Amino acid sequence: MNWIVQTNEYKKDLVPHNGNKFLTGNGFFGVRGTMEETKKDNMCAINLAGVYDRAGDGWRESVNAPNVLYTVVEVDDKEYALPEAEPKSHEQILDFYNAIHKRKTIWTTEKGEITVEAERFASMANQSVIALKYSVSTDYDCKIRIKSGIDGDVWDINGPHFVKLEVSENNGVKTVVGTTGEKSHIVTAKEYIKADFNCDRKINCDSMSAIEEISFDAKSGEIYTIEKVASVIAPVFSEDIDVSRVSYDELKNAHIKAWEKIWDISTVEIIGDDEAMYALNYSIYHLNIIAPRNMDNVSIAARGLSGQVYKGAVFWDTEMFMIDYFIHTDPAVAKTLIDYRIDTLQGARNKAKEYGLEGAYYAWESQEGGFEGCSDYNITDVFTKRPMRTYFRDKQYHVSAAVVYGICKYIDATGDTSVFENGGAEAIIECARMYRSLLLKRADSKFYEVRDVVGPDEYHERVSNNAYTNKMVKLTFETAIDAIKTLENEYADKYNELDKKYDLKTLEERFKDSAENILIKEPDERGLIEQFDGYFNLEDATVDEVRSRLLDPKEYWGGAYGVASDTQVLKQADVVAMLGIFGNEYDKEILKKNFDYYEPRTEHGSSLSACMYSLLACQIGNAEIAYPLFMKSAGVDLKPGGKEWMGLIYIGGTHPASEGGAWIVAVKGFAGINIENGKLNCNPCLPEKWQGMKFKLMFMDKLYQVEINKNGGNITEV
Amino acid sequence: MNWIVQTNEYKKDLVPHNGNKFLTGNGFFGVRGTMEETKKDNMCAINLAGVYDRAGDGWRESVNAPNVLYTVVEVDDKEYALPEAEPKSHEQILDFYNAIHKRKTIWTTEKGEITVEAERFASMANQSVIALKYSVSTDYDCKIRIKSGIDGDVWDINGPHFVKLEVSENNGVKTVVGTTGEKSHIVTAKEYIKADFNCDRKINCDSMSAIEEISFDAKSGEIYTIEKVASVIAPVFSEDIDVSRVSYDELKNAHIKAWEKIWDISTVEIIGDDEAMYALNYSIYHLNIIAPRNMDNVSIAARGLSGQVYKGAVFWDTEMFMIDYFIHTDPAVAKTLIDYRIDTLQGARNKAKEYGLEGAYYAWESQEGGFEGCSDYNITDVFTKRPMRTYFRDKQYHVSAAVVYGICKYIDATGDTSVFENGGAEAIIECARMYRSLLLKRADSKFYEVRDVVGPDEYHERVSNNAYTNKMVKLTFETAIDAIKTLENEYADKYNELDKKYDLKTLEERFKDSAENILIKEPDERGLIEQFDGYFNLEDATVDEVRSRLLDPKEYWGGAYGVASDTQVLKQADVVAMLGIFGNEYDKEILKKNFDYYEPRTEHGSSLSACMYSLLACQIGNAEIAYPLFMKSAGVDLKPGGKEWMGLIYIGGTHPASEGGAWIVAVKGFAGINIENGKLNCNPCLPEKWQGMKFKLMFMDKLYQVEINKNGGNITEV
Repeated sequence: MNWIVQTNEYKKDLVPHNGNKFLTGNGFFGVRGTMEETKKDNMCAINLAGVYDRAGDGWRESVNAPNVLYTVVEVDDKEYALPEAEPKSHEQILDFYNAIHKRKTIWTTEKGEITVEAERFASMANQSVIALKYSVSTDYDCKIRIKSGIDGDVWDINGPHFVKLEVSENNGVKTVVGTTGEKSHIVTAKEYIKADFNCDRKINCDSMSAIEEISFDAKSGEIYTIEKVASVIAPVFSEDIDVSRVSYDELKNAHIKAWEKIWDISTVEIIGDDEAMYALNYSIYHLNIIAPRNMDNVSIAARGLSGQVYKGAVFWDTEMFMIDYFIHTDPAVAKTLIDYRIDTLQGARNKAKEYGLEGAYYAWESQEGGFEGCSDYNITDVFTKRPMRTYFRDKQYHVSAAVVYGICKYIDATGDTSVFENGGAEAIIECARMYRSLLLKRADSKFYEVRDVVGPDEYHERVSNNAYTNKMVKLTFETAIDAIKTLENEYADKYNELDKKYDLKTLEERFKDSAENILIKEPDERGLIEQFDGYFNLEDATVDEVRSRLLDPKEYWGGAYGVASDTQVLKQADVVAMLGIFGNEYDKEILKKNFDYYEPRTEHGSSLSACMYSLLACQIGNAEIAYPLFMKSAGVDLKPGGKEWMGLIYIGGTHPASEGGAWIVAVKGFAGINIENGKLNCNPCLPEKWQGMKFKLMFMDKLYQVEINKNGGNITEV
Repeated sequence: MNWIVQTNEYKKDLVPHNGNKFLTGNGFFGVRGTMEETKKDNMCAINLAGVYDRAGDGWRESVNAPNVLYTVVEVDDKEYALPEAEPKSHEQILDFYNAIHKRKTIWTTEKGEITVEAERFASMANQSVIALKYSVSTDYDCKIRIKSGIDGDVWDINGPHFVKLEVSENNGVKTVVGTTGEKSHIVTAKEYIKADFNCDRKINCDSMSAIEEISFDAKSGEIYTIEKVASVIAPVFSEDIDVSRVSYDELKNAHIKAWEKIWDISTVEIIGDDEAMYALNYSIYHLNIIAPRNMDNVSIAARGLSGQVYKGAVFWDTEMFMIDYFIHTDPAVAKTLIDYRIDTLQGARNKAKEYGLEGAYYAWESQEGGFEGCSDYNITDVFTKRPMRTYFRDKQYHVSAAVVYGICKYIDATGDTSVFENGGAEAIIECARMYRSLLLKRADSKFYEVRDVVGPDEYHERVSNNAYTNKMVKLTFETAIDAIKTLENEYADKYNELDKKYDLKTLEERFKDSAENILIKEPDERGLIEQFDGYFNLEDATVDEVRSRLLDPKEYWGGAYGVASDTQVLKQADVVAMLGIFGNEYDKEILKKNFDYYEPRTEHGSSLSACMYSLLACQIGNAEIAYPLFMKSAGVDLKPGGKEWMGLIYIGGTHPASEGGAWIVAVKGFAGINIENGKLNCNPCLPEKWQGMKFKLMFMDKLYQVEINKNGGNITEV
């Protein structure tokens, strides 16, 4: 299998897509796959993890660092830059095994050809570092000027975020220090250029940028190469290096070694299907470039580090779709993701209080400290251009259960119950307390209901007894009871501490009462589980018919009056997501009936959807139905054409949840890996053309080699 | 005071308004105040009580009878009709003491002038009858042809409703029999014309109409008069007369006498303010022309008998705003209104069941048999032209409490507890059972909540613990307990019958528990009662500011995304309506503070609003603030400019609730009539310029004369 993503053309309208497809990163920042000469008007960004800012009344969002890569060439005083100057040829390459980005562009002039080649990476070994090697050659003698430095005029969706930019130069090291407006976060960008050929060098600093001009008389056929070492630091990651003292090649070697180590555990081999293997490992690449390594108080945003879309915020995506991969390949990263939730418990408490609830209600769009980044108006009406009141923030209660579920999965696979002691139990208890305060009982009923919610299928707002939500709430109560019991048995001090605070016996009783009496939707006479109260009474229109009712291609399908709202058409897996988690509680026949009912009614308007359907298809034993859905998930960022608009809001970017979901389908679906009696077990269900799979897994602090074939598999400790 | 409504001009764009302003009627039908020559394109209608039909997928609505009045004149073969032929002068008069409609129109021709005069009435003595006297004269000799008959091509909003029209003629009596499509209701229209002058007569029957041509050579200065006696019968009222055998004058005399009797009890004199007296008695006129006398199974529609707007359906308006007037002037009518609800209990049970509730949930828009005429899509979006999902039908739970409240008021003022025996107690119990099944309790709370409702202020949908609703629900529980006790003490057979059906002791306990524990919003530290959970957190914008945000003058203010929805601006009295009913439970200071808070935030977008504010202002003792609101209520149909559109739906027509509200303000507000210890009492609060009031009231089956002056009043049995 080749590990190369490549395009041999340059199309302006694919610039946003390629910015995502060719993304590099190291968990601290993502470098969009744009050209070195790209400025903010073409979505160039070095998007930072964990640094947020609000400008004016705009949405709070992640901050983009000053662009340390900026480099453009002038030949005989004329600038050659994409997209302005039409190239003769253009190649863009991502070597995703080594996480190196390359480009080669040739322009034709009246006198001949100009060739620009560049290679760069976001160092996995030194996470503050971006390094660039940039070469120019011509097939005629001419004057060349390379302008390269730091461009502080960055692309922002709701910016600008730097209220102050300090630009300076010292011994060739250019520095731009940006200070954000809301919380005075400081982002420092530096770079230094080595040019081992005869040239004139001059550094121009203005209010936003520090740009060096490297001018020389170029000889035909000669290749002129500069090497840039740059660094970015911010509160989240501040281990800096001296950019003038390390060489490009040193950094590149260390970077490649770091990635070799990652791939040694991460690679999933698929024997007999290079295309699937390619897509899956490309997905794994994306998970790795956004994994918070060597950092605290950070998690993974829904669009990874591909930009400011969705405010750079952490969604349920992380716990539902991404954490599994890390639990089984790099548990330290998984622990960081969990610790982020534990450490932001206070934010979740604040949100619960805001809504008159007890306990902890995690943010739908979590920013630093658990701050809720989601607005009450998250979509713009295409007809009136007014903001629409949405309920993502206040009624997607299931997010707290996702946090609990993430912790469960981590402990189940690592055995690390110390998480309970170190804040985990308290976070779970607080989530359960929130749900307890949400429960409603009709006057003469024994059942607790969860009313007025938004489930995973966001097209149907303010529904009651959503099948997914109620089941996850029940899981939360049960997990809280387990956590209390574990503390009582294993962590007496912590138990006593929390008992003083909460009166754990009373809580335990209440959680038991809640878990026992919460209304859980059972399959009806057709074997179908109703998505929420009244769902089956909605108009049973097809997805195509609903689509045909759109008056504007960008209009929102959901909300109060959306085309899907009063129909059974759903955005994404909801009952199916529930069955993917709790499938073992139902007969296979029930799983199949629900899959068959809900799949054709699903728009798959979220990239989270296909993988859930795919996983359930594997559980039903139908790998051929699972396969195209798996490929859709794994290849989500390889092809253009994803949903880029929600109302009038741009929502493009990478889709790490879909990519994490693809890994889950491969490992837990096709390979059928599961935990039985505390042991790894497999029950494969391979697509026809797959002869086998080979991958490694971490489990209970040990590394295992998994080999899957048509008839079963071997799991051996490494 | 004169009892004349008059206009001396004809403006085409006032035709809809004048159709309402000059409405005549007798409870069985309303005859819109259009000209005799008017056809369906100018909103001519004889709107029937209690006859409903659905055509195709359209809304179910009341049916308009074939137009028995249709009459037009031709002079020298040219037709003279409004609005096509511009008149020289035009007068339209409603004598609302005698309930007689008149018009006089002069057209100028090349040869001279044509004068048409007409007088007509909807007989109060013979409720199937419409009679018309129609005269033509010219000041030059000419040929005249009067075309007069029955026009079966009627105006419909969601029609046509007659799938069959049988047109016939027999000895000069024309008959059009219409059969409705949905339920095959039969509406029979007849008419007969007397013309005591020399003329040629010819009757033409076609598929929709029977029109007689009366042709003659007219002499200058001679007045040619025809007299038409017409009748309409339908299932609701079928006492017919022989139209060829009674004279116009006989009918007119009987009609006037019937009205004299009504006015003898109904008139409210206001000494010192003719304008107010005029508006108030005009309001009383409107209540009388729509009162169901000598009919069963009928109530009063929200737009009275002015047309098909609001589907000819009965709303809470009847019990909240109109019934008081009838209770105190014609209790038999009030009893009919109550019996309508008792007789339609099964419809209310069906609706409750539809929503998974126990008991009875009365229709928001009640048609025959209690059929719910309200659609889930009651408004059209002005931007997308799509129907908007509204919650009038499913979440305005307070309608059942209004029914209960109506019964309470009737029994309180008549002492007629036999209503309990004759279905009233069961209806009340069923309403209480519905509310019981609606109550929700949070897991660890003692309070019952009423969540996800629409209160009187419809601009805020799906709110919880609406102050008005919860209080009315509590009233319902208390009334049900009273009803059960009354049965137990006074109507043992009925008690035993219902006990078998419901287990009344258990119900009583449940209702007691409900009444005691339902969450009732108390005044906060500012003395304010919050309209619903979270209302005070909404944007506190002014009505003008909210209005300025409209992008289209016809767009709906409420719904999910309306300009008022996320602000504190409300459509109509809500907390204030509650205080108007339960004012005696609060300090005057609290009443005042809430009035002062809510009034400026109220759009008064419903004609029900002003009178409620006015009543509360009287209770606070501020007649000067009450006065303009009273005048707005009483004069609602006298002036054009009312709200005629809700989204893209026409909602014009008369406003009997506002008119009934005006009577309540006059009698219970300004005169301060109340019931204390089973006796009529008064506590007046007159506007500055009013020297006194004089009116009669029925109470406990006796008639009283009330005389109010600045310092108090006398109430003496007549």
